[in-house]
Amino acid sequence: NELTHLDERGQARMVEVGAKEITRREAIARGEVAMRPGTLDMILEGKTPKGEVFGVARIAGIMAAKKTPEIIPLCHPLALTGIDVQFRPDRELSRVEIEARVRTTGQTGVEMEALTAVSASALAIYDMCKAVDREMVIGAIRLIHKSGGKSGSFDREGEEKWL
Amino acid sequence: NELTHLDERGQARMVEVGAKEITRREAIARGEVAMRPGTLDMILEGKTPKGEVFGVARIAGIMAAKKTPEIIPLCHPLALTGIDVQFRPDRELSRVEIEARVRTTGQTGVEMEALTAVSASALAIYDMCKAVDREMVIGAIRLIHKSGGKSGSFDREGEEKWL
Amino acid sequence: NELTHLDERGQARMVEVGAKEITRREAIARGEVAMRPGTLDMILEGKTPKGEVFGVARIAGIMAAKKTPEIIPLCHPLALTGIDVQFRPDRELSRVEIEARVRTTGQTGVEMEALTAVSASALAIYDMCKAVDREMVIGAIRLIHKSGGKSGSFDREGEEKWL
Amino acid sequence: NELTHLDERGQARMVEVGAKEITRREAIARGEVAMRPGTLDMILEGKTPKGEVFGVARIAGIMAAKKTPEIIPLCHPLALTGIDVQFRPDRELSRVEIEARVRTTGQTGVEMEALTAVSASALAIYDMCKAVDREMVIGAIRLIHKSGGKSGSFDREGEEKWL
Amino acid sequence: NELTHLDERGQARMVEVGAKEITRREAIARGEVAMRPGTLDMILEGKTPKGEVFGVARIAGIMAAKKTPEIIPLCHPLALTGIDVQFRPDRELSRVEIEARVRTTGQTGVEMEALTAVSASALAIYDMCKAVDREMVIGAIRLIHKSGGKSGSFDREGEEKWL
Amino acid sequence: NELTHLDERGQARMVEVGAKEITRREAIARGEVAMRPGTLDMILEGKTPKGEVFGVARIAGIMAAKKTPEIIPLCHPLALTGIDVQFRPDRELSRVEIEARVRTTGQTGVEMEALTAVSASALAIYDMCKAVDREMVIGAIRLIHKSGGKSGSFDREGEEKWL
Repeated sequence: NELTHLDERGQARMVEVGAKEITRREAIARGEVAMRPGTLDMILEGKTPKGEVFGVARIAGIMAAKKTPEIIPLCHPLALTGIDVQFRPDRELSRVEIEARVRTTGQTGVEMEALTAVSASALAIYDMCKAVDREMVIGAIRLIHKSGGKSGSFDREGEEKWL
Repeated sequence: NELTHLDERGQARMVEVGAKEITRREAIARGEVAMRPGTLDMILEGKTPKGEVFGVARIAGIMAAKKTPEIIPLCHPLALTGIDVQFRPDRELSRVEIEARVRTTGQTGVEMEALTAVSASALAIYDMCKAVDREMVIGAIRLIHKSGGKSGSFDREGEEKWL
Repeated sequence: NELTHLDERGQARMVEVGAKEITRREAIARGEVAMRPGTLDMILEGKTPKGEVFGVARIAGIMAAKKTPEIIPLCHPLALTGIDVQFRPDRELSRVEIEARVRTTGQTGVEMEALTAVSASALAIYDMCKAVDREMVIGAIRLIHKSGGKSGSFDREGEEKWL
Repeated sequence: NELTHLDERGQARMVEVGAKEITRREAIARGEVAMRPGTLDMILEGKTPKGEVFGVARIAGIMAAKKTPEIIPLCHPLALTGIDVQFRPDRELSRVEIEARVRTTGQTGVEMEALTAVSASALAIYDMCKAVDREMVIGAIRLIHKSGGKSGSFDREGEEKWL
Repeated sequence: NELTHLDERGQARMVEVGAKEITRREAIARGEVAMRPGTLDMILEGKTPKGEVFGVARIAGIMAAKKTPEIIPLCHPLALTGIDVQFRPDRELSRVEIEARVRTTGQTGVEMEALTAVSASALAIYDMCKAVDREMVIGAIRLIHKSGGKSGSFDREGEEKWL
Repeated sequence: NELTHLDERGQARMVEVGAKEITRREAIARGEVAMRPGTLDMILEGKTPKGEVFGVARIAGIMAAKKTPEIIPLCHPLALTGIDVQFRPDRELSRVEIEARVRTTGQTGVEMEALTAVSASALAIYDMCKAVDREMVIGAIRLIHKSGGKSGSFDREGEEKWL
């Protein structure tokens, strides 16, 4: 079985990484919340220019990234060195795009932290808007970039860089 | 502004629900993890019949539902009375479908708890399989059903009941 | 010994409140962060009108209120029904004033939740400004109002209502 | 904008510290709880000589220091190497003084951990005494000393060393 | 299968208790830490009469009881109304006995909270003494009493009441 | 006083370890849950071969190991590198034996993490079986092995290696 989180008997474990090299590592993940155009308008027309909604969702993402090993059972605790979360409203497709970047210096990567940040930011947006739009859909949560560590860099094809 | 989580100045708050009726409430959410066929095979061919992967992901979902007010900043703490998480592998579309049902007796609904459970289960599946498939995509996280409370019941159209 | 959190032997306990009446309860607390005028300017002249600093500090306060029984050892867990945190910059005295209001329906009051919210908001402001001003002082953290429960209402003298 | 916790667009982030040097770092913070003389008497006349109140408040401070990145949104998680919390009753000014010292070996300082420890200890004292004295005031929470790291040492003027 | 925490397919769930009666419930658990006589002496001869060790272990137990649904995956979150933890040194058998009593008003019992409190207090004693005695053994963690709820009261045979 | 967790005044502290060497460290702990034969049968005859009960209890142990510094007041936060939890049903003595192994690279050992993992796994087993057997007893929680660090290796006598 190639699933490293299961041992030779197929049982879950937090796999030992103590022999892996300590390197600087980075991961970027993205996702989106699709909503009705009127919902997106409400977010964007808040009394604070960029919308208090994004401010709250950003903090949700940053704090969730730090909480990743409590949320994902077999994830290693890591001393994260940096976390950014950005939002990009897309009126054409009536959705908010989310990007999270997480960095650490350690023995294992931070893909899960970046994906968890995106998920929590998306859930926070859903929470703040659910009174007006129950049918929003959170989707396309995916890894965009990963660097550092023995398995090498990864860049998902077809993803342009955000400005 | 109709976003109840923002006050009249557009600032975030945990909106007061103390005057709302205490009722039994339920919410069901769904989502999915799309993956390569070979990845799905590995999950399904674990040495434990239903796959240890689903066992771990289920606990991730149940525990995350309880942690919802820590993950979503403006969410109320609630004494949840029941949580179920189910998985449905779909070989045709090469994905795992996830369904979470959460119940409480309280003054506010449990939509966010159900959506958080689905998200955490999906992230846990991603975590356990990422060594073999970095390109999995978590998506279609959505509310399927909601009942209890003044705003009435909701059933998302086009969603069949799981057996 | 009249300290209810100590038993007859002087030992700490989480005092039993199961016989107390369930009532709606509210508490308001205030505090302040004194800083150099230039530091206050930086907070107020952020690119977002009300200052991203207050947005982050507000979420810190709201989330800390929910975390109160984890921070204060003998505090009861409570299902909070509402939390508000407000900031009032005071250029004359070169400080930021903080007010938190917390409500619940339960068997014990929410003074500690309101005081904890104020403390966490103050700490978050300190954190965001410490690179430019190490000498800020957090102070005057105090209970302003309390209502609900057998011990009756309390309003601190000399405290005007915020608009 | 010189506030390092905000990016060039004025948005919150957990600022990247991965390029900073790993050094031993220490921070000392102080604060106080002002109370009625009779309240201080009750604390000091507990059946345990130094008062169970201080014992509980010390643990509150130590545990809160470890929880700092969960309480302060933009704070980095750090592997703390040592935490001390001391109390000094001051009958003349009818208050309890609190001092916390926190140490780590890492890429960023522990000022917030020391300030959080002092705040939590103060809140715990308030909690244990609030049944007899609602008007206590928590104040003068301030950084006393900081060492390690590129920005150099800091010693607040006019603060004598505790014996 | 009579294990209520598993559904009809043998899969884990947080079993729905929303239809159960809300009653006042209590549970008492006990356990012990066996150690070398010299270790027990050190605990009992601390500079504080009852030993700072017990003070710290008591807070560990109280705080862990509140954290039970985070530690035990299928445990319901409950608003605990009271928690007591007591210690009884036993020089003859060279051990410390621990008793925890937890109460709530709710739809499910607090046995797990009482057992978790005892376990955490025992672990805290082990932690504080491990530098002098690595061979301590934590044992006899058991339910002594349970009342409230449909399944009726339970009193373990052969357990005398502590004074 | 040789209890390192107490300072020269007998007061609790998280003892400074910043000068200790960073080494790879490992600890193994064991414990057991004694139960009625019929209870053990139910665990072993679950519809999943190894029993969903062990799957859930394993995750409880792994997640609790990561939460150790939140449960044990004076314990240092550590970046754990690996965690395994195993179960061994013993029909003859009608009990389940538990073994946890924890590893880190750091300045202090992981005995408490291993003991906490065993305790949480045992509590989770108790929780899942308590509806059919209230008289289970958790016991024999003990350190089996420790290596790494200045104080040298430790192997408890009379403990055979698990296959």
